[in-house]
Parts: sequence; C-alpha cells; structure tokens
Amino acid sequence: MRIPKHIGVIPDGNRRWAQNNGMSKEMGYDEGLNPGLELFRTCKKMGVKELTYYGFTVDNTKRPSVQTKAFTKACVDAVKMLENEDASLLVVGNHKSPMFPEELKEYTTRKDFGKADMKVNFLVNYGWNWDLGNLKFDETTTSRNKIIENINSKDISRLDLIIRWGGRRRLSGFLPVQSIYADFYVVDDYWPDFKPGHINEALNWYETQDVTLGG
Amino acid sequence: MRIPKHIGVIPDGNRRWAQNNGMSKEMGYDEGLNPGLELFRTCKKMGVKELTYYGFTVDNTKRPSVQTKAFTKACVDAVKMLENEDASLLVVGNHKSPMFPEELKEYTTRKDFGKADMKVNFLVNYGWNWDLGNLKFDETTTSRNKIIENINSKDISRLDLIIRWGGRRRLSGFLPVQSIYADFYVVDDYWPDFKPGHINEALNWYETQDVTLGG
Repeated sequence: MRIPKHIGVIPDGNRRWAQNNGMSKEMGYDEGLNPGLELFRTCKKMGVKELTYYGFTVDNTKRPSVQTKAFTKACVDAVKMLENEDASLLVVGNHKSPMFPEELKEYTTRKDFGKADMKVNFLVNYGWNWDLGNLKFDETTTSRNKIIENINSKDISRLDLIIRWGGRRRLSGFLPVQSIYADFYVVDDYWPDFKPGHINEALNWYETQDVTLGG
Repeated sequence: MRIPKHIGVIPDGNRRWAQNNGMSKEMGYDEGLNPGLELFRTCKKMGVKELTYYGFTVDNTKRPSVQTKAFTKACVDAVKMLENEDASLLVVGNHKSPMFPEELKEYTTRKDFGKADMKVNFLVNYGWNWDLGNLKFDETTTSRNKIIENINSKDISRLDLIIRWGGRRRLSGFLPVQSIYADFYVVDDYWPDFKPGHINEALNWYETQDVTLGG
C-alpha cells in the first residue's frame, strides 16, 4: 500500500458535535483529545512519518473568549499528551502574540520524546499571513526553494494528504505552501466522532490517486 | 440562492478523456474549448461576477512538446473566443518566459469586450512560486492586505468557490492566496464532458455551506 509520508489533519466539528450532544459549544474541544491520540497511534502503525494538526488560528481567536480559552487549553493538553509517545514534537505559530499559550513556547523548537520516530507538528495561533509574512525576495527570485526556506512554517514538510473532519471542503488557511500538491480527503463525521476506520477510508482513497506534483 | 461572486475553474481530465475516446492525449485540449464558453455563459446567467480558468502552469510545460503546444494553442483560442462575449479579460502568468504565448501578451492588462460586465481571468504559464515570488516585507509585516497587494496575481480577487473537473481533489498550485477560504467542489466527469448541470450541482452544494472566512 502506498502510504503518505506526511498527513495534515483538520479536526473540525467540535462545536457542532457539542451542540448535537446537548452541550455548550466550547465543551466540544476536550472531546477531541482522545481522537487526536488515537489518530496518532493509527497513523504510526501504518508507517506515516509526519503528522500536522491544525490546532487554532489567529482568525479563531476572535471567537467568544470562553471558546478561545477552551481550544487553547485543548491544544496545550494535546501536546502534553503526546509527550508520553514516541514523537518528535514541534509547535508552529505566532508565538510573539499574547494569544500564544506560554506552556507551549518550549515546543517552538522541536523536542524529542521516546524513540521520537515520528514528527508531529501542531499549528497553534497560526495564520497564513503570519506564515507568508516573512518572505523577502529581490524581484527576479521565484525559486521554490527560496520560498520554502523562508516561510515561517519552514520546519514543516510538504503535505501528501490532508484529511478534514466535519464535512467542510476547504483549507481555511491551512499551510498554503505545503498544501499545494496535497490530496484532500473530507470525512463528514465531526472530529470527536473520529474512528480509526476514517484513516483506512482515506488511505484507501489515497491509494487510487496518482502523484504528479503538478507535472 | 446564494451565488458565489468568484468561481475558480480547474478544467482537468482532457488527456484522460482523449484516451478514453481513442485519441492521442494532446487531442483532448481542443475538446475543452466549447465547455469553457458554455460554462462562461451559464455562470453569467446565474449572476457570477468573476471567473478564473486554470489554463496551464509552468509545471505543465515540462510535458512532451506535442502536448505543450496543444494546450498553449487551446488557451489562446479560449481567450479569443471570449472576445465575442461581454467580458473583461485578463491573462495572468509569467509572461517574461518564452513559454508564454506571444498572442496573449496584450491581455496581461485587462481588456474589455462588449458590456464587459463579467471579469474573466486565465492563468497562463502560471506558477505558485512565480505568484509568491514578488513578496517583499520587513520582518514585522504580516498584514494580509500587504500580501494580497504584492502577489503577482493581485488583480484576481478572493475565490468563493473552486470547481475541479476530472475527479482529483487537490489544488495543484491554483492561486494559493485567493484559495485560502474557498469552498472546493469536485466533479468526477472529465472537463470535455462538461454540462451546465455540473454548475447547478456545485451551486446547490455551495448553497448549503456557511461562509466563515476562518472565523
């Protein structure tokens, strides 16, 4: 089976899940923690080498503060949870802003845990414009490598496959440069309803796709 | 009905269509011309204000020259075809390269035809890295407007909806900045099998989506 090296994860639908289950919206985020761990273990078993989770964005922090607090805490907890696994952890986002959680600052350079044989990246207080905002070229430079080396998320590699939960078919600012050639798979279930079978479905579909990198 | 202002069109599957119909691959491109016109007219009738067609990319020009010639000619013909419509035409791409067709140079600034009440953009010899390659910031600038004003495709507005024909679920370098919040709809039929019903399907689906712009 052709396994993607790097999978991007957009864990959407926490608030809709909470509402459907009679909870207030912000209560949905905690329900996404175990799915995150289960997804990590499933992907690891299948031989995926790198995972990137879409934590929260600068856009998201404009939501009511009770929600902002809840998703920020969920991101901190998710990173801490993976410290107990064999993982090499990195948090990428605008860490100079007050919205960036203090507890995650030490992860803005990669930290290894256990065998550290799988890279796991979290986008935290990330913004596409923050990511591209560091590019500096002279007018004749359109070198891909120079772009790739100068974005703020340069430690995150090209994505092979992006899986989005919650039914929406859009990227919502997720790593615009690394997403360029990625295949995009959408799961209709909300993220808290994650099951390993979703990964199997996505990989079975990915298997049928060709890789052309735009050629 | 909620009509997207700006639709991006990825007209993929010409070569696969040709092969399925017993032709050599490069013969598929010509079959995409009438669909392009029909799509324009359908969208216009529905009140869409701007259309962007993915013509060809710098990546594509690495294909066998018989194909490169065929898709370049099809792009030139597509632009010329729309001169007879009420359209405001713009061609965006690396026009300093020899792969850019001479005949389209005059369209690298917008040209109005008839009532010119719909913007139509064509990406011709376009590359995502060419597009981003002009960005210049000082380190503290992550302003969205500054990014949007400095990309090489700055005359093309934000996309609301992207429709890709040919079944593949990826952007393949299509306007990474304008695509950030776009909804992405995939039609399994190959582009030469376009029918106006595809637009109805896509718009019916789009109608059910919310617009959050990342919020």
